[in-house]
Amino acid sequence: VQPIARLGVIGVGVIGGSIALALRRAGLCGRIIGCARDRDELAQAQALGIIDEPAESVAALGREAEVIVVAVPVGSMQEAFAALAPVIAPEAIVTDVGSVKSTVVSAARAALGVRFPRFVPGHPIAGTERNGPTAAFADLYRGQRVVLTPVAETDADALGRVTALWQALGASVDRLDPATHDRVLAATSHLPHALAYLLVDCLLRHDRGADLFRYAGGGFRDFTRIAASNPDMWLDILFANRAAVGEWIGHYAGELQEFAAALSRGDGDRVRTVLDRAAAARRTRVADPAPR
Amino acid sequence: VQPIARLGVIGVGVIGGSIALALRRAGLCGRIIGCARDRDELAQAQALGIIDEPAESVAALGREAEVIVVAVPVGSMQEAFAALAPVIAPEAIVTDVGSVKSTVVSAARAALGVRFPRFVPGHPIAGTERNGPTAAFADLYRGQRVVLTPVAETDADALGRVTALWQALGASVDRLDPATHDRVLAATSHLPHALAYLLVDCLLRHDRGADLFRYAGGGFRDFTRIAASNPDMWLDILFANRAAVGEWIGHYAGELQEFAAALSRGDGDRVRTVLDRAAAARRTRVADPAPR
Repeated sequence: VQPIARLGVIGVGVIGGSIALALRRAGLCGRIIGCARDRDELAQAQALGIIDEPAESVAALGREAEVIVVAVPVGSMQEAFAALAPVIAPEAIVTDVGSVKSTVVSAARAALGVRFPRFVPGHPIAGTERNGPTAAFADLYRGQRVVLTPVAETDADALGRVTALWQALGASVDRLDPATHDRVLAATSHLPHALAYLLVDCLLRHDRGADLFRYAGGGFRDFTRIAASNPDMWLDILFANRAAVGEWIGHYAGELQEFAAALSRGDGDRVRTVLDRAAAARRTRVADPAPR
Repeated sequence: VQPIARLGVIGVGVIGGSIALALRRAGLCGRIIGCARDRDELAQAQALGIIDEPAESVAALGREAEVIVVAVPVGSMQEAFAALAPVIAPEAIVTDVGSVKSTVVSAARAALGVRFPRFVPGHPIAGTERNGPTAAFADLYRGQRVVLTPVAETDADALGRVTALWQALGASVDRLDPATHDRVLAATSHLPHALAYLLVDCLLRHDRGADLFRYAGGGFRDFTRIAASNPDMWLDILFANRAAVGEWIGHYAGELQEFAAALSRGDGDRVRTVLDRAAAARRTRVADPAPR
């Protein structure tokens, strides 16, 4: 794996910060330059050893860095790309970590212009409901999956280098086209986040003085853990992928309605079929990590 | 706390088994007699030191035991109560751990007859998606909440003794009437279980060759963990509490529809309000246990 002399990280939260920590620990980068809208986070990232040096601006970072990781909310990416476009070296590589890929690829194409082939759209399927540089850790990506969504214009060399970097951090890399990525992640991530936020909100709205959360057990805690995720970030994701998310909400609402009808008419066979099928799939097809 | 000379445990799975282990470790019981429909589980429970002695039948156990914990699926409780009624001593105490209380109280009232006042309906809000005696552990109830739902007939002495036993295991005991319990638990436990099973099923039904589960991250794993729970047990619970569960599904379906409409019409304020409110409640009102 070719090391990076100067890595630039735009957005030093849990995702960008963990990439910096992991690349440094792997001995894959020299100096790390960071920038962030929130000056306190940037100072924190420096104090935590995530970055070596804060940049004055995205443009200042872009002039220096050889590989640039854009790790800001998806709604802020176009602005970052636009600031990078005029200043980055022709051989620089730009990659991102956005949870939605079609809109990010479009934004990059529009903003990066002739530099667009050196942009490698990416999405590490890893994260935590905690935010900010203090939540970053070097092992976040070990054993996790990263989806890259190159398009026709994407430079093979840039794609190969980003692939090798992720693999060096212990991640396994898949390639999907952006639309497929967005349909898949709408199902496995964006829909569950929406459903978890909605459950908590539903209980708040119908509490009727029962103090429902007092009776939350481990199942409720696990189910709603993702509802503690950053609302700004998730507002961006849900809107950036609203077509696919809307389609999955439609599928799910239909499923919910059928289930309620079966329960209401006492159709035990129908309910049993759903529970059996779902439990079997959850037990056999979704790997829980070994307890630490 | 008054110790139990002979404890009877009907159903030696994770819930009943953990009660036996915890009471024994606390020095609160002498001999533990167990019975279970599944003979292999009963033998396992004995091998694991959960019970000292298997009983031939519920009636045989009922003749011997001073305190009897009924820890079978809610749909099988009436049968257990009916077998106990003619044989238990007048001073024996029967308690249960069912996740639904109105139907269990009715079943107990019908089946136990003159012994009904010595029945203390209970529900420890603790569990795991794993099943059977091998999943039992003595610390399951430490720091957890147990809801008791006594009714007018319930004997104060029996209620006090069951309360003291749970407290001695480190649980905090709340009292609710059975209908309130069922409305509350429909919201915090039965609805989330249904929603988790339905999400997994929805992905299976609309997979279209995408191999969606391959892209499941930590959020999906947490959200769907409860969908690995025992389908037989959950079929029982959902049907035993179908009125309250149906009502909550209705609330939730309305919430989902409003959300989809807001997303579709681009109403960011409305979506933001839901996400902000839910994230704040999840962060501040639901206590995650300290990492082990």
